Order: sequence, then structure tokens, then C-alpha cells
Amino acid sequence: MDAISTFRFAALLAGAAAFAGPVLAQTGDVLRTQEVSVRVQKLADGLEHPWAVEVLPDGGYIVTERPGRLRIIRDGKVSDPIDGLPKVSARGQGGLMDVALAPDFAISRKLYLTAATASDRGSGTEAFSATLSPDEKSLENVAPIFTMQRFTRGNIQYGSRIAIAPDGSLFISVGDRGDRNRSQDWRDDAGSIVHLNADGSIPADNPFKNSSKALPEIWSKGHRNPQGITFDSADGKLYTVEHGAKGGDEINNPEPGKNYGWPVITYGRDYSGAKIGEGTAKEGLEQPLHYWDPSIAPGALVVYRGKMFPEWNGNFIVAALKFQLLSRMQRDASGGFTAEERMFEGDYGRIRDVIVAPDGALLMVTDENDGELLRVSRAESRAG
Amino acid sequence: MDAISTFRFAALLAGAAAFAGPVLAQTGDVLRTQEVSVRVQKLADGLEHPWAVEVLPDGGYIVTERPGRLRIIRDGKVSDPIDGLPKVSARGQGGLMDVALAPDFAISRKLYLTAATASDRGSGTEAFSATLSPDEKSLENVAPIFTMQRFTRGNIQYGSRIAIAPDGSLFISVGDRGDRNRSQDWRDDAGSIVHLNADGSIPADNPFKNSSKALPEIWSKGHRNPQGITFDSADGKLYTVEHGAKGGDEINNPEPGKNYGWPVITYGRDYSGAKIGEGTAKEGLEQPLHYWDPSIAPGALVVYRGKMFPEWNGNFIVAALKFQLLSRMQRDASGGFTAEERMFEGDYGRIRDVIVAPDGALLMVTDENDGELLRVSRAESRAG
Repeated sequence: MDAISTFRFAALLAGAAAFAGPVLAQTGDVLRTQEVSVRVQKLADGLEHPWAVEVLPDGGYIVTERPGRLRIIRDGKVSDPIDGLPKVSARGQGGLMDVALAPDFAISRKLYLTAATASDRGSGTEAFSATLSPDEKSLENVAPIFTMQRFTRGNIQYGSRIAIAPDGSLFISVGDRGDRNRSQDWRDDAGSIVHLNADGSIPADNPFKNSSKALPEIWSKGHRNPQGITFDSADGKLYTVEHGAKGGDEINNPEPGKNYGWPVITYGRDYSGAKIGEGTAKEGLEQPLHYWDPSIAPGALVVYRGKMFPEWNGNFIVAALKFQLLSRMQRDASGGFTAEERMFEGDYGRIRDVIVAPDGALLMVTDENDGELLRVSRAESRAG
Repeated sequence: MDAISTFRFAALLAGAAAFAGPVLAQTGDVLRTQEVSVRVQKLADGLEHPWAVEVLPDGGYIVTERPGRLRIIRDGKVSDPIDGLPKVSARGQGGLMDVALAPDFAISRKLYLTAATASDRGSGTEAFSATLSPDEKSLENVAPIFTMQRFTRGNIQYGSRIAIAPDGSLFISVGDRGDRNRSQDWRDDAGSIVHLNADGSIPADNPFKNSSKALPEIWSKGHRNPQGITFDSADGKLYTVEHGAKGGDEINNPEPGKNYGWPVITYGRDYSGAKIGEGTAKEGLEQPLHYWDPSIAPGALVVYRGKMFPEWNGNFIVAALKFQLLSRMQRDASGGFTAEERMFEGDYGRIRDVIVAPDGALLMVTDENDGELLRVSRAESRAG
């Protein structure tokens, strides 16, 4: 794993004018990566801890800010906050977190949000559906569709990413809330992936729908703080990435009813250096597809299937906070991870989200006080 | 089937300024269709019988003109013709026809073309691979990858659309060249769908790879003049649309080694009114999924899976020359066609090609002396 595989050019020195694209002004940095030169353009700045971005059907962007704001960005203009959001608990790692557009958003204007919310017992992870008003100024029909089973003190490890399955149902990641034993309690949503219909009801194929062993929304357990969750359009499988402790970040393919081991098994140690659990493997507990040690602090995951970067087809792209990088995980024909390229390390800040735009460009947001929305496109598409 | 389901507004009267999009100036017509209002914008005109359009990785367009020219369109500017094209036979219905970009075009710059070409025995359908030079001014490495088995006199019914399979192999449609009995000759490429590897070699799964019954490139026979061929990304199946005679245009799902009946069975009649063949059904010959009578003259087919028009998800969109329309074929859960909406009838001219752009908009070209490249996008995405 090469720690720094990118180096940065001033755009003018790199002769960027030769790479003119059709839509965006030719601003931004041209960077050389292992297989391709990319341009990184700032589409917006001044965002306060942006957590998630999605592309609207007309090409605009919708972005969450963790303090509890949702904004739309078009043509470099950032809208005022949208009204009517649910009240969030913006403390510690919590606040407004993910946004996901329903597959029929262009008709229904329906979207999903996750947030840390508060009760008199503390806070927890909650998910909402809502519709965006025609003038884009407010949310309407806001309704909770998932509220984690137990709210507790402390403001860390909420998980909170949403993946929409091909059938329109929702997979939502829930962190262990800093209380690791909850990840092994099957009557607790903490440290799990939950699976819900779009209206919050329980899907017929959930593993514990008719069982008292576990809460009916639970799909898989034994996760620590999963903040990346996505489907690969090529194999239709669900993949997650989760934060470990000191070491032990993991990529998993969560299957129904399975236990991914935290904190009984882990490839990490406590931040104190103390050993956690029983080791790295145990009968009945699943192994990760990949782990990082030291941790990179993965905030999001997408499997690249765009047209813009054929070199990256099938690669897992992971946004990382700690080392402020994108990790590009390459796989062999059997699906095993073979190599990692670390891109943009330290160049742009703590990358919280990464997605693939319809044109195959990457979009990412940096979780900073003055956070940015960035677009990563191919620099040499016309210069060969 | 309602003959005219669209009606046209002047853009200003429809208050088009309220629907501002991020990229394109707010020009064009706003038209009401059954389920959604659409905007039709002219991206380019002055094209001479454009036959096919594809979207480049950076958002530009590449367009064929039947007389034998290939051009790139960006920001409303039409490039000079690209040099180095193969010599085509631009007579009758023939000339330069389809263009398709290799899945890894962004790296390889490889594309495929089809054309009518000439020999001393007449003309026939041929396909080429080539690479686009870095400056986009010329084709390099032009190589024939398919030349139909028998060239003959006459300049009609070449077929000539390309579909690229998920594995990168090529399906190419070949017309009967106006000599209907060729469609039942398994040692003749006329009236067939052929299947080739990207380099023109024969795929291992071809039905007659090791058989003397048929030419090894043949996938299916009994087609008349198929000019639409596409994969549905949802079911991974191959679909074609073909021109019948007077009546008898068909949608088929060509399966390996099967015979789709022309001219033994057909739902059409000769242009003279005379009966063709033995009727509409016969043992051993496949039925179409759908037929049109009277004919619409279908020039292209795409199965809509974009995000911009969720109302159209899974619909078959067919470009039609004769009635100058787009046909939107709706299907039920079992895949049967349930209804047809005819859009833009007579509004823009003979529509030769239709594709879905990465953002879910439709792109189409009109096969006219002063042909146009048009974009169909959602008009009310922000006005509800």
C-alpha cells in the first residue's frame, strides 16, 4: 500500500486548457493517479460539516450539513436551508447525516434522511421519509420510518448510511453508540444493519420477522460503526464499510441473520492499546472481506460502475476521514481485494461521503467547518 | 393507441423560465405527454441524414451522417468531419450507419461503426472497429470485424445497428437486402442477428459455432430489416425491432438458433397488398413480442431505465420514421405490452435513432436533409 500515490499539479502548469470539458469551467487541480489523471473541481464551499450528497434528476446536488441543514447546489450557488426538517441532536458525531433519493424521486419527490435525534433518555439513530416541495424550499410529509430501539447517553457512533435495494426497500446502518456489547444484543438495533420497507414496515424476507431471537428489522449484527453501505449494480450484493477501533476497519457483505463479530472478534485494538474480545476469528462469526490496520476511518463506500473511469470498474471507492483520502480497492476475478490506491491523501480534508454521478464522475464532500463539495473527473479524456 | 397524444406549447407561453435547468439554456418546446411534460431542445442542426448518436465520456456527442461522415458536437458546435473513415456506399438506404462506443472507450478510445460498403458484386453490411485519435480529428486502427457473406445489387435493407453485450461482445442486425428469401438461408447473413467478439472472432457460445447448418456468426434468423437492437439492463435480455413490409413491424427477443419467421410468417402484406408467405404462425417459427400494423417504420429501440422519467421505467422507446414519432410501449409485470403512447408525431421529422443519456434524458436524431440532434428532458422537475 503506497501511502501517497498522487501528486498535485497547479492546473495552469499542467496545461489544463488542453483538457476542456463541455460543462464546467476549467478550474480545479489536475492530479496524477496510478492509472489516470483526474481533475478535482470545487463545486461549492462554505458548507458546515457536510455529511452526504446526492444528484437530483436535473443535475443539481442535494447536501446535508450535520448541524441540521439540507441545501441544494446548482451552478455553484448554495441555496438557503430547506425548511421543515425534523429536529436533530447535533452533538458529538450526531446531527443530520445521510440523504437518499427514492428511485422515483423525479415523480414522487420522496427522499430519506437519517439523523441523531434526542429523547429524555439520550439520543439514537432515526430515519425519516419526506417529500421535497415543488419550489424546493421545504420538506413535506416528514414521517419517521425507523427509530432505534434504545436511546442512550453519549453522542458517538450512530452509523446512519442508507442504501436503497433494487426493490426499493431500505438498508440502514446503525453504530454501536460507543457501547460495544450492544453489537451482540440481538434485541438491540445498535451495531447492526437493519432492513425496512420504504414505509418502515418489516420486509417479508427479513431473517427474524417471525422470530423472538432478534428484533424483526435486524438483517445482520456484530458491526461497530458502519458508515458506508451500498449495492454493487453488477452482482446485486450489499456491501458495507465500518469504522473499527485502533485498527479493524472492515468491508463486509452482510447476509441475513449473520454476525460480523464485533467486539468478540476484531482485527483492531482499543485506543488504549488493550486487546479487545477473543481474537480475530471464531466459529459462527463472519470474517470481513477486508480490514485495515491502522484504521483509515471510512465514512462511505461506493462500488464504481461508471463509464468515465473504465480503469476503476468494479473497484470499491472508500471515503476516509482520518487520512483524508479516497481509497480505491481493486479486486480480482474471484472478488478478493488485491491492491489499494490511496488518492488525495491530505489534499482536501476529511472525506465523509463519496458517490458516483450519472456521468461516472465521483462526487465527494469534506466534513470540515468550511466543507466543500468536490467533483473528480477524467482530466485527459480528449488529450489521450 | 391514440394517434396524437402530445400537443405543443410555445415555450414562452408555458412559462418555461420557471423550469430552469443547470446546463442548457432554456430553449426548446415544452410538450405535454400522457404522464409528464417534456422539453425538447435542439442541440444541433444542419446534419445530413444523421443515423446514430452516442454520448462521449465527457458529455459531448458523436454522430454519424449517412453520406459517410462522423462528427462531434459540444456546446452546440458541430465539428468538421473526422478523417480516416472507411469508404462507404452512400446510395439508397445505405451509407455510414451506426456508431457504438466500446465500454472502455474512455481508456481505449475504441468505437464500432457499421456501413454499407461496395464490392464489384454490389454492396452489403460491414462493421468496423477503430480508435478515435486524441485530438478527435481522425480515426486510427480502422479494421473490418464483420463483412456480410454475400454482397448483392440494390441499396436497401442493410439493418446495421449494434448492441454491446455486458461481456463486451457485439450483436449486429443485418437486413434482408430486399431479397426476402435470404432471411431463411442459414448460410447467408442477410435477415439475421449476428454475434461476434469485439475483434470479430466467433464467440464460444454461438449456436452454430461448430455446425455446418449455419454460418458461425449467426445468432438468429428470419428477420426482415432490424434496425433497433438493445439490451435491457434490468433483465439482461436482447431485444430487437424490425421493419416489416406494409404492416408487420416486430419487436423480438432473439434467442440463439431461433427463426423469427420472415417471410414465411408475418403480420404484414406486400406493398402491393399481396399476401406474403403462409400466414401469421407456424410450428418452429417464433412469434414476435409485438407487431405494428400499419407499420411505423422503426429505426431504433431502447429500453428506458433512466432516473429522469420514472414513469417510463421499463418502457420500450422506439424511434419511428414513417409517422415521425417516438413510440413508448408500456409493459405489464409479465412483460406483455399493454399500451402505446405515440409522442411528437410529425413534430420533428423522421426519427432514426433514440438513446438514453447518462442523466436519463432521451437523445434522438432526425434522418432529414437538415437533420437535428434533439434532447428530451423533464420539463416540470422543479415545478412539481
